Amino acid sequence: MTKELIEFAQSLTGLSRDVIRPHFRKNVGIIDKADDSPVTIADRNAEEAMRKAIEAKYPDHGIFGEEHGIKEGAGAEMWVLDPIDGTRSFICGAPWFGTLIAYLENSTPVVGVLDVPMMDEQWVGTPEGTTFNGQACKVRQGVPFEEASLFTTDMDLFEGDQQAAFTRVKEKIKTVRYGTDCYAYALLASGHIDLVIEAGLKPYDAMALVPVIKGAGGIVTGWDGEEVTLDWDGRLLAASTIELHEKALKELRG
Amino acid sequence: MTKELIEFAQSLTGLSRDVIRPHFRKNVGIIDKADDSPVTIADRNAEEAMRKAIEAKYPDHGIFGEEHGIKEGAGAEMWVLDPIDGTRSFICGAPWFGTLIAYLENSTPVVGVLDVPMMDEQWVGTPEGTTFNGQACKVRQGVPFEEASLFTTDMDLFEGDQQAAFTRVKEKIKTVRYGTDCYAYALLASGHIDLVIEAGLKPYDAMALVPVIKGAGGIVTGWDGEEVTLDWDGRLLAASTIELHEKALKELRG
Repeated sequence: MTKELIEFAQSLTGLSRDVIRPHFRKNVGIIDKADDSPVTIADRNAEEAMRKAIEAKYPDHGIFGEEHGIKEGAGAEMWVLDPIDGTRSFICGAPWFGTLIAYLENSTPVVGVLDVPMMDEQWVGTPEGTTFNGQACKVRQGVPFEEASLFTTDMDLFEGDQQAAFTRVKEKIKTVRYGTDCYAYALLASGHIDLVIEAGLKPYDAMALVPVIKGAGGIVTGWDGEEVTLDWDGRLLAASTIELHEKALKELRG
Repeated sequence: MTKELIEFAQSLTGLSRDVIRPHFRKNVGIIDKADDSPVTIADRNAEEAMRKAIEAKYPDHGIFGEEHGIKEGAGAEMWVLDPIDGTRSFICGAPWFGTLIAYLENSTPVVGVLDVPMMDEQWVGTPEGTTFNGQACKVRQGVPFEEASLFTTDMDLFEGDQQAAFTRVKEKIKTVRYGTDCYAYALLASGHIDLVIEAGLKPYDAMALVPVIKGAGGIVTGWDGEEVTLDWDGRLLAASTIELHEKALKELRG
């Protein structure tokens, strides 16, 4: 994993922004992810543009995208792409959806890009650290569990006893906010919030977030406390500090 | 109510933006609305700046602000101000909080400004229509109830049987999104979503939204179907069309 690869990963957002931006808030009457809706066109074409660039630059690498599925690679390298994370935000005209680009080695995410095309914001996580619009960013320290702020996208995304587990955390901490998809992880990496807890995520929803959180000094695991790799179970816990991670994990386990 | 008054109402956002913007995402460690936190300073000083401008221009008008309370007016004119609607978004570094400015006559809102300082977006509602960043905007038409998208800030803000009432609507429609405060009403006025249902609102959370929704062709009432005036009960239902308003109202009533 080289500087060249990181810069290439970032450069993909130039392609995705060019495709996505003209479709945002257009064709106001269309409300679903039906064929040829603006969100479908933007999603599909943005992924195609990124895949082509990856295939040209790194023909041996695997690619796994939300829209166009899996292309097996020759080795241990794989790209995981979600052109529009927060489809419902996009459809509803809310500009805080993101483009997620992850580079993995041996199923472990090592570089992550979280790009917010309509707000000109970009977080890039690598083993050397995380940047927000080119400046180093860090999680915050010293917030006690009972003062913490917690984000999730939608309580209805929890299944079975997941909602009860989430509620145990929620009842112990101070502030809960909803509706953010990937943007919550960006706020955590920049030191504005303390916890994100979600479930039912797919690899393309999560792989890019892992290096962003880790590079900013945060902790990100499954609800079992294990590392998040390509085949994890879709339950994500991100925390600014080890202390908050431990306390949230304890409540999730019940 | 003159063109001059509308332009004056808009000009207040120049003052509020100047005060609010420097405090956003600053002093990352502070997480509460405690004394002298960035959000408190921004809130208080923005309201002070707007009050001073109103007192200078219209000394006889009443003023009701979230931070500095009520100044009785000499006549039927009153300004209702919320410098930061979406305090928790502001605290959490999320840029979709807004500044709300309403001008009322005889307790009825006639001009509303919804300004989003960090995203350079502004909606202005008057009896002549609603504009988004200077361009006329309209609610959308023709979305069936079962295809509608519904926004609210937080299910936990509903008290008693309000949550059950909201859930009856939610179960009939297609998409629900959370966490938006005033921004949801802006999305409705611009034709991107169909319904907003909230409760527990204060006059300064709501007065500015009424002319914005009405000017864009939408319907906004209490949960009783009555007009929203200064002394209404804090339960708000905004809809893009009469049909959706009627169907949502029926479910809310149970």
